[in-house]
Amino acid sequence: MSPFMQLVLALAILIASSKIFGMLSTRLGQPAVLGELLAGLVLGPSLLNVLGWSFFTDTHLTENVLHMAELGVLFLMFVAGLEVKLSDLLATGKIATVSGSFGVVVPLLGGAALAWFWFADYTLTQAIFVGILLTATSVSISAQTLLELGRLRSRVGLTLLGAAVIDDILVIIIMSTFVALVSSSAGGGGLLTIALILISMVAYFVAVSLIGMRVLPWLTRKVVRWPVSQALLSLSVVLVLLSAWSAEVLGNVAGITGAFLIGIFLGRTPYHNRIEQEVQTITYSFFVPVFFASIGLQANLRLLDSGLIGFAVILCLVAVVTKLIGCGLGAWVAGMSRRESFQVGMGMISRGEVGLIVAAVGIKEGIINDNIFAVTVLMVLVTTLVTPFLLRLAFASERADKPDQPQQMPASAKASNSK
Amino acid sequence: MSPFMQLVLALAILIASSKIFGMLSTRLGQPAVLGELLAGLVLGPSLLNVLGWSFFTDTHLTENVLHMAELGVLFLMFVAGLEVKLSDLLATGKIATVSGSFGVVVPLLGGAALAWFWFADYTLTQAIFVGILLTATSVSISAQTLLELGRLRSRVGLTLLGAAVIDDILVIIIMSTFVALVSSSAGGGGLLTIALILISMVAYFVAVSLIGMRVLPWLTRKVVRWPVSQALLSLSVVLVLLSAWSAEVLGNVAGITGAFLIGIFLGRTPYHNRIEQEVQTITYSFFVPVFFASIGLQANLRLLDSGLIGFAVILCLVAVVTKLIGCGLGAWVAGMSRRESFQVGMGMISRGEVGLIVAAVGIKEGIINDNIFAVTVLMVLVTTLVTPFLLRLAFASERADKPDQPQQMPASAKASNSK
Repeated sequence: MSPFMQLVLALAILIASSKIFGMLSTRLGQPAVLGELLAGLVLGPSLLNVLGWSFFTDTHLTENVLHMAELGVLFLMFVAGLEVKLSDLLATGKIATVSGSFGVVVPLLGGAALAWFWFADYTLTQAIFVGILLTATSVSISAQTLLELGRLRSRVGLTLLGAAVIDDILVIIIMSTFVALVSSSAGGGGLLTIALILISMVAYFVAVSLIGMRVLPWLTRKVVRWPVSQALLSLSVVLVLLSAWSAEVLGNVAGITGAFLIGIFLGRTPYHNRIEQEVQTITYSFFVPVFFASIGLQANLRLLDSGLIGFAVILCLVAVVTKLIGCGLGAWVAGMSRRESFQVGMGMISRGEVGLIVAAVGIKEGIINDNIFAVTVLMVLVTTLVTPFLLRLAFASERADKPDQPQQMPASAKASNSK
Repeated sequence: MSPFMQLVLALAILIASSKIFGMLSTRLGQPAVLGELLAGLVLGPSLLNVLGWSFFTDTHLTENVLHMAELGVLFLMFVAGLEVKLSDLLATGKIATVSGSFGVVVPLLGGAALAWFWFADYTLTQAIFVGILLTATSVSISAQTLLELGRLRSRVGLTLLGAAVIDDILVIIIMSTFVALVSSSAGGGGLLTIALILISMVAYFVAVSLIGMRVLPWLTRKVVRWPVSQALLSLSVVLVLLSAWSAEVLGNVAGITGAFLIGIFLGRTPYHNRIEQEVQTITYSFFVPVFFASIGLQANLRLLDSGLIGFAVILCLVAVVTKLIGCGLGAWVAGMSRRESFQVGMGMISRGEVGLIVAAVGIKEGIINDNIFAVTVLMVLVTTLVTPFLLRLAFASERADKPDQPQQMPASAKASNSK
């Protein structure tokens, strides 16, 4: 079988399983995304190990599938950006900043303390890096769950998105600073590196904002009249790819943050509804099912030996609890109600790709070993799997008390009132 | 730059260039697809060699891009299938069969004769294989051009699609038979192989037809009600992938033939319009621009040395002329008008992926060498580049004589007639 046909078969299996599990999940009253994540776990090395079957001989197959999945994350965050109004997001600025910051500091301290006391031979550098592994947040799963619940544009949803951007920036700054300090104590020019990273981040946000505010309205008006098929959607796709690329490569920010930002700015154009409708077809029919399934696909729960499993379980618990406490406390301190703070904390638990990026840097710099990397992948998976479930629970209690949306009074009630 | 970010940047460059060149092409009165093909030539190794730039360090990048492009061909042929009615296609059966058969035999003889007389040291086996290289047809570019002209469902368009399916089947049979004979004369069990290939082909067409007629109507009705996002489009995507995979791996037919067939059968369901509209977004915004650009991207015109260039030029001429004469003559013999036969011949000139598949088999079996492979890539490229241009010319002359569609008489003319 040619490598391409192996990819074709793998994609067909992943998309079909993802949708079937998603359908079953909704039938059981759970969010579709939970089923789609479980599909990957069933297909992955933990259970069926589909990509390891003997007719899948291409050694790049997993890599190719993961590329499709990563494109899915970008489109997912782009759709989330389209859904969000910039003014609404900025209005949550203070709460988001405090919640995001607390949500970085508390997991960092919790993770570092756990590693320091668990592993007798760990240096302070290694222990702190385990803490940094817990600081990340990946809001894409929460955004998807909130979309399904119709709550993405609520105050909780917007705070979550804002706090995730703050979290992303802080994590990259902390990790870069830490690695620079570690390597500079080993004789490099660390402070200059940190300064350059900060400057590139600021420059990126300024540049994207300027382009988003000044150039995009003109560009979309222009391109929408081009006599080529799907001109507007193609432009959107190109902008998602370019903003994600420039975020990660030029701005030292996560690619998903770039995709999210360009979504916000395209959401301000008059073509907002059309772009959203069209990009959802490409996103949810192809790339996103692959992404959701791929998360479980990457985890091999069989690999964890008995010595490591205790640490892994406790690290997962610490990851969940510290994020919930950190973000929740931050939101509460900044003025949210206790219920809202709890919901924000729940929504920030999921780690995802940023956590894996930090782990990959740690391996490359020789700070952590393969065991901690495997545990990190498990932690990312567990936090991602539990988030839609917990988030739904957090909102379910609310729904029992008060209605989802500020509903209009029924016409019959009005009529009886006016009598 | 991570391999994924290299892919993201490459895709952004390809899609943007493809659409910009496509737009410029339509401004000059040419089909968009011509510009999109030229975009790849400009970006490819012949001119800018974008994927060879120093920041593209991932050795799998080209392979990853080509996978996206191949997915694009599948979706393109699926859309063409959706556009076509099975009854219309079967109505052209006789003409399509004769035209497709002549279109295989004439290029085979022409190519073999050229190689035999040009290369003094060629064996008859090698010369015949050069002929087989010319037998393929790739109708995707012609289908796209006819779609743009609004003529895909005309008698010429349908004959073209039917003849391409016949061509595809014949080429695979001839190539398989030939390779089996060559290897059996070297001591293998060739005839059994040929019989198995024929049986698998027939079994594939019977199975797809049964599933398409009996299972698909029920399956689409069922899945369209699933409470997951983009259920119907996801089902279509999965079916395209599975039919292409089963065509190539189980049925020994080209993957694009499978995608085309499943398009025909999904076109018979009540969801025909919705599927077509939704699949066009994913197809034309992302995968197809990559496919068109990738054709030029694969060609390195600089590689052809002076000794080979003469043969290459004449082979391209023979490829164009023999296909035009073969298919045109076949269509004319079977009863089409001279003009229609000419148009069918023009539309069959493009080679494409089947030609490359045959060449790859030839290399693997040691029948042709790297030089002939490079010339074959050039021939595929040239025939594909000239096809939209020639096809448009063939239809332009018609348009000068009589209107595109059987137009209604203008109201004013009617009024003056009735007086």
